[in-house]
Amino acid sequence: MGDILHRVGIEGSSPEKVYAALTTLDGLAGWWAEKTTGDTALGGVIEFRFGPGGFDMKVLELQPGRLVRWEVVEGPPEWLGTTIRWDLRQDGDWTIVQFAHEGWREPVEFMAHCSTKWAIFLMSLKQLVETGIGAPDPRDVRISDWH
Amino acid sequence: MGDILHRVGIEGSSPEKVYAALTTLDGLAGWWAEKTTGDTALGGVIEFRFGPGGFDMKVLELQPGRLVRWEVVEGPPEWLGTTIRWDLRQDGDWTIVQFAHEGWREPVEFMAHCSTKWAIFLMSLKQLVETGIGAPDPRDVRISDWH
Repeated sequence: MGDILHRVGIEGSSPEKVYAALTTLDGLAGWWAEKTTGDTALGGVIEFRFGPGGFDMKVLELQPGRLVRWEVVEGPPEWLGTTIRWDLRQDGDWTIVQFAHEGWREPVEFMAHCSTKWAIFLMSLKQLVETGIGAPDPRDVRISDWH
Repeated sequence: MGDILHRVGIEGSSPEKVYAALTTLDGLAGWWAEKTTGDTALGGVIEFRFGPGGFDMKVLELQPGRLVRWEVVEGPPEWLGTTIRWDLRQDGDWTIVQFAHEGWREPVEFMAHCSTKWAIFLMSLKQLVETGIGAPDPRDVRISDWH
């Protein structure tokens, strides 16, 4: 079992603003996938659709301004059953976002791709909150032949 | 024990060109740290210096156009004894770079920071090889309060 870990800091913001970007359809569509639909409430399922495919996430846990957790209930076989965790906190002028995509069964090449791509999307989240303009799919930064 | 994994694809290049960016002082200074000195030959030690500190890497393994491996022999305590592995191959018009920073003892917050920062530097490597201009320290993309 392996995890993808990331950490970014968002300047001049607050955990509440970042939490909104993770728990509303408009927020999610602003940094991850423009085609985001579904129910962002606790127990709801959010559908994210990308050029190459998509993921459905069940909302497992919500602590306003502190924590968001999802479980992958539809998507590539390597993602099924994995969980995604967002921890938020304020450190001075920075909102610290700790991210974990937990429970990968094997350290496959696709996991390495997803790790890099998550970093790119976390930078998109940072840009969205800092400037109002993120880079979600299909305007995301391309990293390879796998997109 | 945990690993940081990444994967990027470099378009219109070759494993030999990417290998050169990983095994020459000019190449390394072009995408990671402008202040790179030392000996890039097998068994040599390369010194990378950044604003916040630095790392010394011993060159453990070199297979031209295929593989580079380093061991961290000086640096932050969390990095000491960890190894860094670069696997290169050609897939059509793309040079695929698989990266692993292996042997982290604990999944600490600093590991999450380094994971995101490695992704940023891999994108800098990609830009250097594709366009001739990377974004090494001190011109690197800032991701947080930890730089």
